[in-house]
Amino acid sequence: MSQAKFIVIEGLEGAGKSTAIQRVLDTLSMHGVSQIEQTREPGGTKLAEALRTLVKQEHEGETLIDTTELLMMYAARVQLVENKIKPALASGAWVVGDRHDMSSQAYQGGGRGIAADTMSALRDISLGDFRPDLTIYMDIDPRVGLERARGRGELDRIEKMDISFFERTRERYLSLARNDKTVIVIDASQNIDEVGADIEAALLEWLNKESV
Amino acid sequence: MSQAKFIVIEGLEGAGKSTAIQRVLDTLSMHGVSQIEQTREPGGTKLAEALRTLVKQEHEGETLIDTTELLMMYAARVQLVENKIKPALASGAWVVGDRHDMSSQAYQGGGRGIAADTMSALRDISLGDFRPDLTIYMDIDPRVGLERARGRGELDRIEKMDISFFERTRERYLSLARNDKTVIVIDASQNIDEVGADIEAALLEWLNKESV
Repeated sequence: MSQAKFIVIEGLEGAGKSTAIQRVLDTLSMHGVSQIEQTREPGGTKLAEALRTLVKQEHEGETLIDTTELLMMYAARVQLVENKIKPALASGAWVVGDRHDMSSQAYQGGGRGIAADTMSALRDISLGDFRPDLTIYMDIDPRVGLERARGRGELDRIEKMDISFFERTRERYLSLARNDKTVIVIDASQNIDEVGADIEAALLEWLNKESV
Repeated sequence: MSQAKFIVIEGLEGAGKSTAIQRVLDTLSMHGVSQIEQTREPGGTKLAEALRTLVKQEHEGETLIDTTELLMMYAARVQLVENKIKPALASGAWVVGDRHDMSSQAYQGGGRGIAADTMSALRDISLGDFRPDLTIYMDIDPRVGLERARGRGELDRIEKMDISFFERTRERYLSLARNDKTVIVIDASQNIDEVGADIEAALLEWLNKESV
């Protein structure tokens, strides 16, 4: 049996991550991958979900410092990677993740403007050299994405940020993707069938190239 | 008016930190310091207290990874320093803290054996060059301290660690104290009156030396 892989779906709010994840799961099944676990970040363990709730909610009368937010994101990530993702991969199950480290690089590094050396030091401390095998980045103009997300209901603390925050985040996503061969960019502004077909084609090409 | 100072009380469980803090408060009052705020770590803001609860409790069926614990401690510390300690000092209030960064250095660095470069990177990211003006370390043999702490009731997740964990923690406390002129070591194995007298004498000497 070929080695299990860790595949991550990334993108701004309203980029269509959930639909993309479903298409990835379907394509993997079609390809004969039988054991698949799904994760989401921040979250995915009891403690990590508690951290997710804390980091997403409003803190009345208390400023959530950018560095605090970043440390909490990494705390949740370490819990998930060590307790869920690594054991799943070791047992032969593939893992499909809704967000992973690229989100912190884009949102906290790009959007909030946290210094590059801080970002890389925290990644080293938290993850060592653990990385996804493949990341599918769903690229969307934040104006379009947020309009879609707003249609789904109330926005959380992060989703309420100014549009320029999301523009910086998208810019960082794209610049990271340009410099990382394990990242595939999908044009998420297309209609749902075109997006799905692009994901399936890109994933199958990657699976064949990897001979898995 | 002289500049407000940040004074921290450190030590193992059962070292008598609460009694020491009271003596510090009394001595500062006696010395004419009128505005004093107290903090405790982890904790001291609503979010930091929520993190304290999460980090201290047992996590059924889930291993709390050492790095996660460390990141949560620093997340709580950043919240407290930026939202409480720095504003208090800026307003002219002195701050007396029940634990601060030295606890992480000793418990996570010494006790858990987290690498020195990880410890220093996280301190840089979280605190920059912010440090206490004075730390009073209450030194006690962990066997004596834990016996006292047990007398007070149920022990939390950290307090249930093996005795060798606390021995490594104490060793790190002592080695940090030897290399840091802002740390005063108090022999906490003495009786309560002797300990109190030592704290008062050491603090008054420091206040006079600092001309505050």
